Parts: sequence; structure tokens; C-alpha cells
Amino acid sequence: MRWTRSLIPTLKEEPAETEAVSHTLMIRAGLVRQLAAGIYVYLPLGQRVMDKVNGIIREEINGIGGQEITMPILHPAELWQQTGRWTTIGEEMFRLQDRGKRQMCLGMTHEEVIAWLAAREIRSYRDLPQIWYQIQTKLRDEARPKSGILRTREFLMKDSYSLDRDDEGLERSYELHKEAYRRIVTRCGLSCHVVESDPGMMGGATAHEFMAPSEAGEDEVALCERCSYSANVELAISKRCPHCEGSLRTLRVIEVGNIFKLGTKYSTALKAMYLNEAGEERPIVMGSYGIGPARIAAAAIEQHHDELGIIWPTTIAPFQLHLLPVNVRDQKLVEMTEAIYTQFIRERIEVLYDDRDERPGVKFKDADLLGLPLRMTVGNRALKEGMVDLKVRKTGEEVQVPLSEAVSRAQTLLSRLTD
Amino acid sequence: MRWTRSLIPTLKEEPAETEAVSHTLMIRAGLVRQLAAGIYVYLPLGQRVMDKVNGIIREEINGIGGQEITMPILHPAELWQQTGRWTTIGEEMFRLQDRGKRQMCLGMTHEEVIAWLAAREIRSYRDLPQIWYQIQTKLRDEARPKSGILRTREFLMKDSYSLDRDDEGLERSYELHKEAYRRIVTRCGLSCHVVESDPGMMGGATAHEFMAPSEAGEDEVALCERCSYSANVELAISKRCPHCEGSLRTLRVIEVGNIFKLGTKYSTALKAMYLNEAGEERPIVMGSYGIGPARIAAAAIEQHHDELGIIWPTTIAPFQLHLLPVNVRDQKLVEMTEAIYTQFIRERIEVLYDDRDERPGVKFKDADLLGLPLRMTVGNRALKEGMVDLKVRKTGEEVQVPLSEAVSRAQTLLSRLTD
Repeated sequence: MRWTRSLIPTLKEEPAETEAVSHTLMIRAGLVRQLAAGIYVYLPLGQRVMDKVNGIIREEINGIGGQEITMPILHPAELWQQTGRWTTIGEEMFRLQDRGKRQMCLGMTHEEVIAWLAAREIRSYRDLPQIWYQIQTKLRDEARPKSGILRTREFLMKDSYSLDRDDEGLERSYELHKEAYRRIVTRCGLSCHVVESDPGMMGGATAHEFMAPSEAGEDEVALCERCSYSANVELAISKRCPHCEGSLRTLRVIEVGNIFKLGTKYSTALKAMYLNEAGEERPIVMGSYGIGPARIAAAAIEQHHDELGIIWPTTIAPFQLHLLPVNVRDQKLVEMTEAIYTQFIRERIEVLYDDRDERPGVKFKDADLLGLPLRMTVGNRALKEGMVDLKVRKTGEEVQVPLSEAVSRAQTLLSRLTD
Repeated sequence: MRWTRSLIPTLKEEPAETEAVSHTLMIRAGLVRQLAAGIYVYLPLGQRVMDKVNGIIREEINGIGGQEITMPILHPAELWQQTGRWTTIGEEMFRLQDRGKRQMCLGMTHEEVIAWLAAREIRSYRDLPQIWYQIQTKLRDEARPKSGILRTREFLMKDSYSLDRDDEGLERSYELHKEAYRRIVTRCGLSCHVVESDPGMMGGATAHEFMAPSEAGEDEVALCERCSYSANVELAISKRCPHCEGSLRTLRVIEVGNIFKLGTKYSTALKAMYLNEAGEERPIVMGSYGIGPARIAAAAIEQHHDELGIIWPTTIAPFQLHLLPVNVRDQKLVEMTEAIYTQFIRERIEVLYDDRDERPGVKFKDADLLGLPLRMTVGNRALKEGMVDLKVRKTGEEVQVPLSEAVSRAQTLLSRLTD
């Protein structure tokens, strides 16, 4: 991608009124822009990061048998009235009337629609288990949107739902999701704690949250110093560990995912039944599993940055390599860089080509800010000695390689970084 | 994909109250379900078709330099008040208040947000041209939602926007889109007319529509019998051709895409200016380009079906091959089919494996209904003679091939169908 044909509006200065490091860096690196309180536009680089995260999510959820669907954003009120959440949920739900004066709401989660669909399409124990998921926009009228894309009123979410015959089936589906979520956050480069939590408005018996340590987080987890117990501080009433009486320490975290054993709350309310092997009608046993790609991206920035900018994990970096000619007015240098660029394209390496007519200092600063894993500088040494510079963003490691080996050496370095 | 682990709720009978053939077939083949008037759930097979269409759209729009972004669904009223459309658009716009009593609307199109973004991020002629696009949900409160997914209140749309220095630039961006759209509809297997149209609520001077002939269409185009003139009938006031006075014939069509030369209407209203080479402030010249993946899918069904079901173009088929063992209670037959299935997976051929315990007649009927390009039947001939049957859905052509060549022969047939 050529920088001059793209929208990458980097900022030299810290924007006003940003709270978290990830917020500041996502604005400064030109990933997102705020349209209104808690409502964001994802610019090309932000979009690419989201695509990467969503790609990893899809692979892992498909891997446990998930089937992707898309459910609507607009819901008729009746659905939510049947489960009682039309009244138990307050101002957080966006409500509106259509032209026929029918009450509707904007989907903040999709248990109701899933149960509605299961009620129509699942007939027998032979149709179970199922895992249905979507990557879809959710809308919640947060009282205090803040911290950039960490708490917004409109956000993308991968939500999956498991349908099972009984509690044993739910246990299996729940464990499949827990393990898939662990793989997702690990592949996205996050360190995470999986902690017990309060099911809250979802109802149900058991819930866990995936918590990424960060000072920007709004949640806190309690970790036992002695055994492996961990929980959302809301649950850890005593400060002593309920398992081993060990002392607890607390840690500030970002919630990137949550999973719930719903049981039969929604299937009973919406009559999502199946016939068991004895021909008896039984409510479908449900689970619900959410993970936020934007929060994963923000948490990755919180955990991987320095004073100069972002340090993207290779798996979710918007591009793998930053190609930087120091002077685009030098015809020879441009020809060399164009030749390298063409080779990268041919080898299908994702490269951002900074073809702007800017001073080298501006370009180097922007490269550090954007934080692509590898930077290749084509400078005076290229003209004089036929050598280009390769620099690893994470370690600062620099090597000079001959022009003829520029692409192959970059590939080797990238594959090492990915392992 | 194993049928028994998937949600493919086919219907034997015609559903009540369907209007268009595509509507009937999308319901019967289990692609979509209606949640409320004009609001649909896309089930796994429908989702896969949409993913295919969107993949083609992305390739073509990236190919002309488009950069993918995501703009919000929730818009503050102020944006639409600045261009006047808050009042000129009537009940078609969903409006709501947030918890702070601020007026908002749901995005039915995104010219306002694009101009808002350009006003902030485009400074100089060097930043132009740009093409920004998204594939995003749109919401329009249609008075009469109908014909399945052809006219809905919530739908996916690819909308792109071009930003140029002047009318010549706009002309280039417009032509790039026109050609990209031609390639998109052709690759999706559609026959289409590109006709002049009325810019309507978009404003601007010139507009064209991409019209796919179908009896289910709500629009009509006038085609000259003598020259190449064609237009939306709304524009063809006389019934005589304005170019050559030839007689006009009309054709019922589905509008799958539309493109508009907006000029400076939105950039002036929202102060989206740039500095030209002389340092003078000028309004950015805009174009707007929409194409509907769901309408493309529906139009493809309208143009490609028979009395038994859908006949998918290979490019947008949910799977390439339908693998059909006639009896899953025969252990030997199942083993043969599983071996073939494993080979297809290894060769990365998208295969739907009908592993249901159903009568062969039910399975054959469903295979014709779903309309995957190629069907492979593993039946008694496989047990006795080691031969499987390959049938091309489109032509009805059947061949028997030895088990050992099953996968390679299927690949050959598929690549012939794709050409």
C-alpha cells in the first residue's frame, strides 16, 4: 500500500482529552476517529487490524464447529418483552419506534434472536449440539463512554451461542469456547487471566471473563498469591482466597471476552424446545460467548508499546513491513525502492510503502508510531554500498543487508518474529 | 461441512406469502429467515453466499485503489441537519434519541460522514484523489418491505466515495467504479444493463444504475431497439429514443447498484475543502457508489434457477460440491464417503457433505434445491463397481468416474465450470 494513496492521518502531538495510552496511540497513528461520544470511524489501518483479529476469531470458532450467521441490528420489542429484558434493562438499550409506531430496539446482544431461531429450526435431539456465531455491530447507550474504543456506544462483537441437549453438553460447549478464547487472545499477542465472574444481566449460573492486564482497564481481578484462584473483584468479597485462605492481590484489567452458561432461561421464555430420544419435549440448554475485537486491539496496544508508539504483535499488525525511502526526490533511490516494493507485492508480503515527500525524521517518527514489526530503510547506503537497513520494531535490532537479498532477509526475519 | 452439524433448514413445501422466486428459494433452501417485516437473519448458507459476493466486491474495489474503512450506524442529527437531509428525508429515516435526549438517526447512507471525515483529514491537493469504502449495514424504514431480501429495512451495502480535486478527477473515479461494477456483476454471474438514472435524494448531476433483468424487479428500464441508449423508465419520458428516435422497449429489472456524481453538494455543506496548487481553498469534488450484495445474490437466483431449485454460479455458490452418500447406515459406503470427504478437505475444495440419515429421494431433492455446481453421489455402484456419479447442476450432465479418480475428476469439472 502506498502511503500517498491511503488515509493514514498521523498526529505529531498528543491529542487533547485522551485517557488511555491505547486511545492516544490509536488517534495519533490514524487508526480511528471519533464521530460523536462513544461512536468511532475505523480508518484503513484500524480496519486492517480489526480484519486480522476477526480472521483469528473466525478460524478458532470455526475450528470448534461454529457456523457463522448474521442476525439483525433492529429487533422488535416483543422478543425482549418475552424474556423480560425489555423492562429489566434500562437506559443502556437504544429504543425507537418505526413508521408504524411499533416499538423496536437496537441489538445489544442476541440471546433473544438465537432462542427465537432455535424455536423455529431445532426439532429433535439429532439437531443438537449447534454453535452459531456472528461478528456484528452492537449498540449500547453507555452512560459514560470513555477511553477511546474501550467503552463505546457502537462496537463490533463476536458473539456465539451454543445449543445443547443437557448440562453435560453445555459443559462441553463451554469448555470448547474457553479453550478457543484462550487461543484467540494468545494468538493476538495478549497476556490474559481467565477469571470467575458475575453473570449479571445475562442470568445463568456460571460465567468467566477474559481479562487483559492494563492500567487502562476499568475492571479489577483478585489473584491468589498461593493457589490458582482468580476472580473478578466483584466476586471476591473477602480478601482472603476462598480455596486456600491465601492472600489476594488485585490487578487492573481490560475485559476482552466473557462466557456464560445460560441454561434454559431464554429457551424456556421463547419456547425453544426439542424432542429427546424418548419423544419428550425439553428446553434447549444454551451458552453465550462474547469477545470484542476492538478491545483486543486496544489491549494489545496497552501491553505492547513504548514511548515512541505502538509495537504490534505480527499476527494483528496492519502491515508486516514498513518500506521507507529517505528521499523520494532522488530518482535512483525511488527506482530501487519501487523494485523492492514490487518484489514484496509478488511475494505477498503486506507492506506499507511510505512514498511521501517528507523529511526522513518525520518518516522515522511515523514508522515508530505505527509500529509495524519490521522496517526497511532505503537510504544513502543503498546508493553508495548497495545495502539497505532492516530494523525490528520490538527489539530495536538492526541489520544491513545487500539489496539483492533485501526481500528474502526480510522474509526470514518476519517468520522468526511470527514464531 | 457436515450437514448434521450445520443449520440448513430446507423446506419441502412452498412457504406462504412469498412473492419472488428468489424469495421462495432463499427460504426453502434455508439461506435466510425473516425476524420481522423487512428484517432478516442470514443462516450459514446465506452467510457464505454473502461472503463470496463481498469477497468479489472487495477485490474489485481494492483493485481501483479503494481503502476499506468502517463508519458508524448511529449518526448525530447535526451532521444531517448541515446538509439539509434531516428535513428533506421523511419517514424512511429511522430516528431516535439517546439517553441524553440528543437526536440521532440510523445511517441509511454515508455521504455526510464521509464529508465530515474529509473536512478533518484532507488538507491539500496532494492528499487527493481518495476512494474510501465500507461494507456496512444500512437501515431504511421502507413503507412496504417486500419480495424477501430485495426490499428490506436492514441490509448490507458496499458504499464507496471518491474524493477528487475537480470534475476531471471525478470523471476518472466515476469511470473506474463503473468498470469495477461491471466486473463485479459479471463475476457474480449476472446479466446487467447499465442505465442512466435520476440522482434522487443524493443530489448531483449524473447517475447510473446497474439493472439485472428479472420479473421480480420493481424497476423498469427502457432500451432502444436501434442504438445503445438505455435509461430508467422514470427518465425516458417519451417512448421514443432521445438519441436516434428509435422505438423503446421496456424490461423489468432489479437494481443491484447505483453510482452518483455528487459534485460539491456535501463538501460545501460540511466544509470539506482542500488547498490547490496555488494555495486557494476549494471544495472537494465527490462521487458516491453503492452496490447491494444481498440484491446481487437474489438477482443471481432470479436469473439462475429451474423448477427444482437454485443453480448457483460457481463464483458465489455457498459450497462448490455436494457430496451425497445414498445410505449412511451402510458402514462400507460411509467409509468410502468419509475418505473422499477427507480428500476434498485436503484439496481445499468447499464441500457440503450430506451425512444425514435420510432417504436418497429427500437428499437428491435437497441437492437440486440448494443448487451447488457439482454433485457427487456415492451409491450402490460405488460398492459394486467402485464408481461414483458426478452431476453438473447447470447442464444435468452426468458422468461415472472410478473412486480413485473421484476428487481429481471433480476438480477438473469444477475448473471447467468456473471458466
